[in-house]
Amino acid sequence: MEAVTSPQQESYGSISRGCQWLKALPNKCCDKTMEIARKTKKLGQDDPRRIVHSLKVGLAITLVSLFYFFEPLYDGFGDSAMWAVLTVVLVFEFSVGATLGKGLNRMLATLVAAGLGAGAHCLASISGRKGEPILVATFVFIIAVITTFMRFFPRVKARYDYGMMIFILTFCLVSVSGYRDDQVLEMARDRFSTILIGCCASLIVCICIFPVWIGEDLHKSVAANIGKLGKFLEAFGDEYFKVSEESNENNKSYLQGYRTVLTSKSSEETMANFARWEPGHGPFGYRHPWKMYLKVGNLTRDCAYKVEALNTYLNCKIQTQAEIRGKIQEPCKRVSLECSRALKEMASAFRKMILNRSAAMHIENSKKVAEELKSLLKTSLWEEADLLEIIPSASVASLLMEIIECIEKISEAVNKLGEAASFRKSNATVLPELSDSIQQETVQQDSNTAMPAPVPHCVIIMSE
Amino acid sequence: MEAVTSPQQESYGSISRGCQWLKALPNKCCDKTMEIARKTKKLGQDDPRRIVHSLKVGLAITLVSLFYFFEPLYDGFGDSAMWAVLTVVLVFEFSVGATLGKGLNRMLATLVAAGLGAGAHCLASISGRKGEPILVATFVFIIAVITTFMRFFPRVKARYDYGMMIFILTFCLVSVSGYRDDQVLEMARDRFSTILIGCCASLIVCICIFPVWIGEDLHKSVAANIGKLGKFLEAFGDEYFKVSEESNENNKSYLQGYRTVLTSKSSEETMANFARWEPGHGPFGYRHPWKMYLKVGNLTRDCAYKVEALNTYLNCKIQTQAEIRGKIQEPCKRVSLECSRALKEMASAFRKMILNRSAAMHIENSKKVAEELKSLLKTSLWEEADLLEIIPSASVASLLMEIIECIEKISEAVNKLGEAASFRKSNATVLPELSDSIQQETVQQDSNTAMPAPVPHCVIIMSE
Repeated sequence: MEAVTSPQQESYGSISRGCQWLKALPNKCCDKTMEIARKTKKLGQDDPRRIVHSLKVGLAITLVSLFYFFEPLYDGFGDSAMWAVLTVVLVFEFSVGATLGKGLNRMLATLVAAGLGAGAHCLASISGRKGEPILVATFVFIIAVITTFMRFFPRVKARYDYGMMIFILTFCLVSVSGYRDDQVLEMARDRFSTILIGCCASLIVCICIFPVWIGEDLHKSVAANIGKLGKFLEAFGDEYFKVSEESNENNKSYLQGYRTVLTSKSSEETMANFARWEPGHGPFGYRHPWKMYLKVGNLTRDCAYKVEALNTYLNCKIQTQAEIRGKIQEPCKRVSLECSRALKEMASAFRKMILNRSAAMHIENSKKVAEELKSLLKTSLWEEADLLEIIPSASVASLLMEIIECIEKISEAVNKLGEAASFRKSNATVLPELSDSIQQETVQQDSNTAMPAPVPHCVIIMSE
Repeated sequence: MEAVTSPQQESYGSISRGCQWLKALPNKCCDKTMEIARKTKKLGQDDPRRIVHSLKVGLAITLVSLFYFFEPLYDGFGDSAMWAVLTVVLVFEFSVGATLGKGLNRMLATLVAAGLGAGAHCLASISGRKGEPILVATFVFIIAVITTFMRFFPRVKARYDYGMMIFILTFCLVSVSGYRDDQVLEMARDRFSTILIGCCASLIVCICIFPVWIGEDLHKSVAANIGKLGKFLEAFGDEYFKVSEESNENNKSYLQGYRTVLTSKSSEETMANFARWEPGHGPFGYRHPWKMYLKVGNLTRDCAYKVEALNTYLNCKIQTQAEIRGKIQEPCKRVSLECSRALKEMASAFRKMILNRSAAMHIENSKKVAEELKSLLKTSLWEEADLLEIIPSASVASLLMEIIECIEKISEAVNKLGEAASFRKSNATVLPELSDSIQQETVQQDSNTAMPAPVPHCVIIMSE
């Protein structure tokens, strides 16, 4: 039987629940605020340039607002001065490339559209007060349809999307306004010059105060991705051939760094698109081959897919018995380490913009060891064992050999890029402690001692 | 010895080169125009919604321009009516979700910022004509810095980035304009109401005329990605175990369809973000679990990484001898086919929003065959052969077994999504001709006869 509650009891219940909720509210708010504060701090710490960027935007907008406040400046443009403020808000982006891209798009599109819009107004006004709206509306419709369709072309979308939008906007603004305001030419001129001022203010602040070059970011990101694969391969050998089963957790964070490489394609493409707008700066000359970074990025991703395949064998259910694994342990670990060194040296030299051939040496070494591995696999070491159990280890060996090929391709692409971008030639190897041939080295030594020295921060090197 | 040319000869040379260039110019222009026309045609044919979208944008802008042309409408807003036109240009996007997202962002941000801006102006005006600019500039600076920094929060960036920009923009516009124009409240009101009109016009045209629902696109794209993997696996068995070496070209386009799955992450995320703005429509109810699509997408990508690994064995240099391959050919082909069927049925049922369990049957079948394959690998069939040569085929077998696990995970995620989104329960299997157990089927038969019937186009199904 259901308990019957009187309406009074119900209302008491809801009141007390309400009271409890109200009591808990300050705590909840406090928790939420603390969480936001923590996230804010983390965002700032992860990339302090974010704080600087926010201050830069504030500064640029405030600077341009002065136009409005000071009589002599305001008199020149009147209310149109507001366009300058709006332009700063719309155009100021995190990186110089993005700001320049948007700014140039906005300026060029405004210039062309303002001219065309004024022309359309003049043409339409010939047909008299009644015919004008019809003609202008027709022009607007046609221009809007064509321009909107053009935004679907991949090349236009990548570089001129914003410009296309501003083109329609300005064309409508000028041609339609012309119906109410005869000073269309003045309006077009004012709009263009205030936008010019806004763009220039944005660019000056963006470039002069701690500029963020997206090309540099792309450069570092491509290098870092190569390095991440190297880091995985460095740890892989020890991890896979570890005899103890203790630390078999699924998520070894230091092994998972490579996973971001798998999905880096779109961000790299965006960066390359913005980087092309940037003028030469530091070691990145005019017409720096940004497209070739995409090629290196693609090859790195191809290698990352193989690394992903390798990673599954770390958590594979069917594992080759330790004693059988032991048979290929040494050459596999050596291949993995040599590959790791090749990648890490490549990443380090690439980051420093040095044409470095020592990675090639490591690739050669790994090929030699791979030959040993192959001949080991050919021998009848395995006959007693069950093929099903051998497969994981054999696949690991085969994947490592494929990875060597991938690394060779990356190395070729990096060298080509290095030549096209006139990287410096190195006299010494980048990380001398790594370049000693490891032929004599026993792999049994603690892998930590073979770790490369930490690479100094890139910005310092680039400011040379 | 170099031939010496007189200056006269040189100028003749350059003139004749110029003439040749001029003669070739019409041809070049013609070629370029033809190319653009071809590309335009292809863009339109690939997705005719692009043409419709362009026409819709033209229509919406033209409609809103009428505000400016017709006296009674213009009298209400005056020059502010132009904001409505600009809003349409800025807010009208390809899909309903994107348009709604931008529109709501713009309206809400304008409402809040206009209020705050007017407040800031009133507060600043108390301090007199001299103090006002300083106070307003301070407010603008603080608001710009805070809002710009907030745009770095990933969740804000994903959903409210445009709103944040419009917030700064409107705040500046209203508070700064207040210095020259005392009718700040009227301005704030006009700006908000014209933006409301622009957004409403965009939304009405966007939703009422051939709407493009991005949620539907996401749904189709996730289903298509699952289907692409199925298509690869369908062809893989025959391709890998083919005895003839004739058609060993590297780029078998019909096998490469899965590659787009590898890099689909960012586009899926963008679509899911926009889809959340969309109201319930057709089979997609309010609060449709769009987030779960990302989960299915991630699992599909994990499977695609394995398929990528499988693909490398198609072009592997070291190949297992045909006779050895022959030993595992039958079970491998059957696993591959059953996996392909599981994926294809899953994709087809998912696309039709049917809770279909027949994929599970194929997964069970493939597991059974995988057990056979395992016991085949355990037997000493291989003893005479060289391990190095066995590895590729053994790896293929092992990858196929891993793929079964991946497909099981995808199937679970799809079922969960299906339950959360209340997919229909199926009475029959989706593709009856496929669901007959293939236990009796010989794999040697032409694989084309085992192909599923073409799935009818999704739009038709959804309009049921």
